[in-house]
Amino acid sequence: MSKLAIGIDIGGTNSKYGIADRSGKIIAQSRVKTQEFKDAKIFLRTIKKEIEKIHSLEGVIGIGVGAPNANFYKGTIENPPNLPWKGTSLFAKEMEEVFGLKTVVTNDANAAALGESMYGKARNMKDFIVLTVGTGLGGGVFANNDLVYGKHGFAGELGHTLVNANGRNCACGKKGCLETYVSATGIRRTVYKLLADYTEPSILRSISYDDLSTRTITDAAAKGDKIAIEAFKYTGRILGMKLSDFIVHTNPEAIFLLGGLSKAGDHLFIPAQKNMEKYLMPLFLDKKIQLLPSGLKDDDAPILGASSLVWKYLDKEEK
Amino acid sequence: MSKLAIGIDIGGTNSKYGIADRSGKIIAQSRVKTQEFKDAKIFLRTIKKEIEKIHSLEGVIGIGVGAPNANFYKGTIENPPNLPWKGTSLFAKEMEEVFGLKTVVTNDANAAALGESMYGKARNMKDFIVLTVGTGLGGGVFANNDLVYGKHGFAGELGHTLVNANGRNCACGKKGCLETYVSATGIRRTVYKLLADYTEPSILRSISYDDLSTRTITDAAAKGDKIAIEAFKYTGRILGMKLSDFIVHTNPEAIFLLGGLSKAGDHLFIPAQKNMEKYLMPLFLDKKIQLLPSGLKDDDAPILGASSLVWKYLDKEEK
Repeated sequence: MSKLAIGIDIGGTNSKYGIADRSGKIIAQSRVKTQEFKDAKIFLRTIKKEIEKIHSLEGVIGIGVGAPNANFYKGTIENPPNLPWKGTSLFAKEMEEVFGLKTVVTNDANAAALGESMYGKARNMKDFIVLTVGTGLGGGVFANNDLVYGKHGFAGELGHTLVNANGRNCACGKKGCLETYVSATGIRRTVYKLLADYTEPSILRSISYDDLSTRTITDAAAKGDKIAIEAFKYTGRILGMKLSDFIVHTNPEAIFLLGGLSKAGDHLFIPAQKNMEKYLMPLFLDKKIQLLPSGLKDDDAPILGASSLVWKYLDKEEK
Repeated sequence: MSKLAIGIDIGGTNSKYGIADRSGKIIAQSRVKTQEFKDAKIFLRTIKKEIEKIHSLEGVIGIGVGAPNANFYKGTIENPPNLPWKGTSLFAKEMEEVFGLKTVVTNDANAAALGESMYGKARNMKDFIVLTVGTGLGGGVFANNDLVYGKHGFAGELGHTLVNANGRNCACGKKGCLETYVSATGIRRTVYKLLADYTEPSILRSISYDDLSTRTITDAAAKGDKIAIEAFKYTGRILGMKLSDFIVHTNPEAIFLLGGLSKAGDHLFIPAQKNMEKYLMPLFLDKKIQLLPSGLKDDDAPILGASSLVWKYLDKEEK
């Protein structure tokens, strides 16, 4: 019988879980609303019950978890600003107790980068960056053909690079972080800023802040709504400017975008690419570093990213 | 007889060369003025003659070269903005022809990072960054216990991260790069800006732009000169702000400063550290990531950085 892995991706809005094999085939998957769980322990007990409903745990050799503020070395999730529970949870240890299975925990964007390297467009790349643009903005950095964790396990927190020292308040406690501009939350804030600054009519004027989603803004842009189009331009300009910094750090071959905001396609990619090149050190211009959508399907990516942790770290002998 | 390595560091102002053993003992060293050489081929022929004057080449097993815009993979130096020769030179190949010795070429700051890991304060560190603050600002990034080169060999060009999109013209062709503020050239520009903006008396008012050196500014700051002190504060503020970005990329254990500007000590380190923490993602604050002067003597560092390339890449069997 073929070996299986559980992959769990904990996001600020949804948490996705599933069972996959080594080839990247997802056997079963589902999701829960993260905000319904005020306690990590209740969350993981519920996940166990839910997984057992969709598939037997027979053949499962381990669990991979991608989560914001997760520490690969310690197996902890530390003060996650976008999750409903507070403080530091010993997540890997508690998963192992509840499931009786070895568990690897890492940053959700690190897991996504590993998934991209095993199953996506980065299969033959040694140096690349994955940005997950969802509720927040996460980063996973691959260099020398391996994930970069850094001394404390928090490398790749690229959503918290600085755009504007006097800018928007960030959930992390700082001001002006990239993710306050480039994320599902960020573009919503940008739309509201533009609606405040300009008088153009817009279909977005009839939607409350709470109801405004990336999908709604993307649909409006597709229909030619000027506020929506300008919101993507503004978002892409800031993203592109910061990408030019990211490139000189680790000289990636490509940068992949994943998650809700990346579905906007050309509305986001064209201004991002243009501004990335505008601000890039000329030495890199002829290197044609690519800005690409992830090679994984949006539904599959979080689970494959998480399950790839099992194949990389818990089942090395077969590599 | 013990094996020896030649180390050559090509800088915008001086090029230093010497012969060292594996333990990091420099047997002989000297320097030439880089700007006197308008052609890379004449430069390397002269270096050969000069090295033979200070020591026999007997026992030398290879040559390591640190240079701006150097490409580790190709052994080239590509369009170096701070060097007197233009275009791309096949530096490693030409060195091998002239010396008859295997040659490894890399970015000068990468070489410095390798030197720090072999002989300096990073001997037990797997993740750290070295910044060389001389005529320009170079960066060497260590992650997962190895140098990060990236896809095209140009990782670590941290002097060309963006401070201000409408800022100072940079030798690289961009505007507002970090090195236009944080480098020997950068602080000179800052002094002149401050002398223009303010009316405070300053001993720096009697010195021409061409004659103004980091040493002069440092000496003036030590004597309480307000313009000089403010110039360091301004420089440290910008450096610290960008360091907060560097940290979230690769989560280093420490960042080392090397080169002329780093000799200013507290005048630079205190505002840099303060602003690094001010702009840092709070998750990293309790990690106490250190900002330190290099553990290598300023005279030795460039040669040891370059010679360490020989031990790492050309004499692996003895590692």
